Amino acid sequence: MTQNSALSRIKHPDFAAKLMDAHDAAQWINPGTTLGMSGFTGSGYPKAVPQALAQRIAAAHAQGDAFQVSVWSGASTGPELDGALSQVDGIRTRLPYNSDPITRQKINSGDIDYVDIHLSQVAPMAWEGVLGQLSTAVIELSGITENGDLIPSSSVGNNKTWLDMADQVILEVNSWQSPLLDGMHDIYYGTALPPNRRPIPLIKPDDRIGQPRFTVDPKKVVAVVATDIPDRNAPFKAPDATAQTIADNILDFLTWDAKRAGLPNSLLPLQSGVGNVPNAVMAGLIAAPFENMTAFTEVIQDGMLDMIEAGTLRMASATAFSLSPEKAAYFNANAAFFRDKLILRPQDISNNPELVRRLGCIAMNGMIEADIYGNINSTHVMGSRMQNGIGGSGDFARNSYLSIFMTPSTAKNGKISAIVPMAAHVDHISQDAQVIVTEQGLADLRGLSPKQRARQIIDRCAHPDYRDALSEYFARAQRDSFGNHAPHLLSQALSWHQRYIETGTMKP
Amino acid sequence: MTQNSALSRIKHPDFAAKLMDAHDAAQWINPGTTLGMSGFTGSGYPKAVPQALAQRIAAAHAQGDAFQVSVWSGASTGPELDGALSQVDGIRTRLPYNSDPITRQKINSGDIDYVDIHLSQVAPMAWEGVLGQLSTAVIELSGITENGDLIPSSSVGNNKTWLDMADQVILEVNSWQSPLLDGMHDIYYGTALPPNRRPIPLIKPDDRIGQPRFTVDPKKVVAVVATDIPDRNAPFKAPDATAQTIADNILDFLTWDAKRAGLPNSLLPLQSGVGNVPNAVMAGLIAAPFENMTAFTEVIQDGMLDMIEAGTLRMASATAFSLSPEKAAYFNANAAFFRDKLILRPQDISNNPELVRRLGCIAMNGMIEADIYGNINSTHVMGSRMQNGIGGSGDFARNSYLSIFMTPSTAKNGKISAIVPMAAHVDHISQDAQVIVTEQGLADLRGLSPKQRARQIIDRCAHPDYRDALSEYFARAQRDSFGNHAPHLLSQALSWHQRYIETGTMKP
Repeated sequence: MTQNSALSRIKHPDFAAKLMDAHDAAQWINPGTTLGMSGFTGSGYPKAVPQALAQRIAAAHAQGDAFQVSVWSGASTGPELDGALSQVDGIRTRLPYNSDPITRQKINSGDIDYVDIHLSQVAPMAWEGVLGQLSTAVIELSGITENGDLIPSSSVGNNKTWLDMADQVILEVNSWQSPLLDGMHDIYYGTALPPNRRPIPLIKPDDRIGQPRFTVDPKKVVAVVATDIPDRNAPFKAPDATAQTIADNILDFLTWDAKRAGLPNSLLPLQSGVGNVPNAVMAGLIAAPFENMTAFTEVIQDGMLDMIEAGTLRMASATAFSLSPEKAAYFNANAAFFRDKLILRPQDISNNPELVRRLGCIAMNGMIEADIYGNINSTHVMGSRMQNGIGGSGDFARNSYLSIFMTPSTAKNGKISAIVPMAAHVDHISQDAQVIVTEQGLADLRGLSPKQRARQIIDRCAHPDYRDALSEYFARAQRDSFGNHAPHLLSQALSWHQRYIETGTMKP
Repeated sequence: MTQNSALSRIKHPDFAAKLMDAHDAAQWINPGTTLGMSGFTGSGYPKAVPQALAQRIAAAHAQGDAFQVSVWSGASTGPELDGALSQVDGIRTRLPYNSDPITRQKINSGDIDYVDIHLSQVAPMAWEGVLGQLSTAVIELSGITENGDLIPSSSVGNNKTWLDMADQVILEVNSWQSPLLDGMHDIYYGTALPPNRRPIPLIKPDDRIGQPRFTVDPKKVVAVVATDIPDRNAPFKAPDATAQTIADNILDFLTWDAKRAGLPNSLLPLQSGVGNVPNAVMAGLIAAPFENMTAFTEVIQDGMLDMIEAGTLRMASATAFSLSPEKAAYFNANAAFFRDKLILRPQDISNNPELVRRLGCIAMNGMIEADIYGNINSTHVMGSRMQNGIGGSGDFARNSYLSIFMTPSTAKNGKISAIVPMAAHVDHISQDAQVIVTEQGLADLRGLSPKQRARQIIDRCAHPDYRDALSEYFARAQRDSFGNHAPHLLSQALSWHQRYIETGTMKP
């Protein structure tokens, strides 16, 4: 990128004066300190300074010097950040969410301390001082105004909090981001710690309650770096037959339940996790008998843009984009059409339990496994290996109007059953999983006792290859369990997972 | 009770005209129907009609006729309700909470379907129609005004919702309850289902946002029964040395953390479960360096009245009393002093996540066990036998400013360790348990990774008799676990519970 192109985005002279190379900017970061990075689901993360920092760390390690940092973010970032820093063993502690494969490997080898936090709670916990001291904020922006206001990028995450809390600030201004992002954000500056918290004045997803840009103390800004690098998100994967069937099951249920409950034709605000099943649900909703829908969710994904173009979705509120590379390019080319239909907010607002319950979100989240009583494992493969993290699923599942968890009924070519006797880890207790759905069918668990839930989950959601074994476990448990409220045989409850670890399959 | 004494509490002639014997009132209740009962932690539950209904059920059963009902309540009731109906096998389904021993036995023998629900969510779920049809509300009152308004009794619970939803209403007017209860309640009539929910306009625990009495459609009232029967709560048990040490650990921590965080001298609103440890904490707070404190909690227990008398606690907001018999009598004799310092609200307000997070409650709840990573089992003994229920612990723990879980480090004379390798059931995930405390010590888990949490919990909270075995499990797990984020050995993780089931002790 030329200096001119960078300066066209950095309109305040004091900030332009701090323009420097990413390697020079990375010199401001000291070993042992904590960095508050922008970035949420692979969008809006800093791309140049983390890579420069990684080179600096590698050089230090080559000389036998210790150099690690702690990394806080909004949620997941990209290979230029988590990947680059983990590759050089540069991360000591990471929070609150990760999906980078190298970082995941180091978390599961025990080399990175990973702190998995409800995404709505990161900013308040940081303010409460219980996460430690924040040294440096490294924040991607799409521009800086003549007044020195900071125009957010393709995610908001915890950026407001990092900018406010950090001792020093490094800014990356990314010309790849659409200039039309300006005005799409709604940064709420009304948060406070107890006893000074007040009601959040949002009563529908399209309410704007804040300001479009961040404010920062210019004295804290030590470096500005210009970049022109795309967000690196996962490519779009067209729904396969399994994903399509799961989506169909959900759509049938939503249509039935909306009629049963007398919901409006616009349904209730949607929250949806990322992935091809949610995208298939979005595609299905275009044809469903709903209109003028809204989303109050964490991320804006491909399917939501399609729904907006189809006129089914009136608007979406989120904290970040999570688009495939093709859709991200498409958005940038058509930002003028989309910009008044999308709002990006800080994640302590996008995921706020007060708002999720008030609005009555319909929450749809993926999972690793459910047990026969409806306890959900979203994070720990075989109970010990971290996949990504709880993310916002707990913020939404507990407080939503309807909490749906979805997964294919098997994984690893049928060697893993997603319905197990006992979940090897619990992220969402059975009270917070009202509907469980696989390609086999859907279990509506609302108002049911544990044994009633088990019958529904086994009969409707389990894969036929595992259904009889689950029924047999449940029958044996009812006969021999210590208590018969939620019968279990503790010597066998985790044996499916143990068998998978030992033999590579849950099948006997 | 004389007819005159009853009529002094029933001042509206239409209601007085419906005064009848409890046995006649019970005739209005049909087999197979659902009853919405008042009652929360043994206070304010109907006492005459349930017993008359139990007799009617027993007579039907003696004749070979089927007769069961489903019972919804606020939370736990008393022996005259749950005990009497369970004794005659009169309960088919029970929700959302129970602590009656006969009912507990039938839940765990599989004879009663028990649906354990977050207490804040019962009313919304009932309104959403997912719990089924409500036939009859049976509500204890302390009086009926000249205008036909209903003066609540010693608990509010879900009474507003039952009165609004039920096809027919039976009222019990209990002259034992203090007439000075009138005016202490704050019944919020502003709730709605999405998409019509609005912010709850409460910003401090003493705000009154509703009206002091219930309104009911008089045409729905089919019977009024006069009673003069005390609430039957558990007797006060003075804190033993273990409870006192737990309380001391909590008080030391609160004092330290308040200073660290710069909290006001009034701290933040307290939420506290029931029992002798919480009462010991209350006693300790009288001497602690805090003043003008408030409580925003489920129940008002003995210790809170002591704090109010000592001037330490300015006021308490709750949904029910949960007093020992002696303290209940004391309250009735001194209601004039207490009445402007206590507010009783519907449980969907007292436990509302929006309010718990806004106010920043300090939540202190008991538990059955914690595992080495801080996952909490509050309900299922050995993973399958229901103790009481999750109650409001999930409403408070997830949304509080500080979530403390407490227990003696052992139970059953040392044969059960409250710190185990893996919890046999999870009610509160590790994210929602920020502090774990036993008489051995206190673990501040905020901002820690799983392995850091394990070290704290084992070293600080476990009983010395089990500490080495936990450390050995943790070391073996770090060596041999499938993943090393939260290491576990699934073939051994529940072996302590299994050993207890087989041998009567967790000790090898």
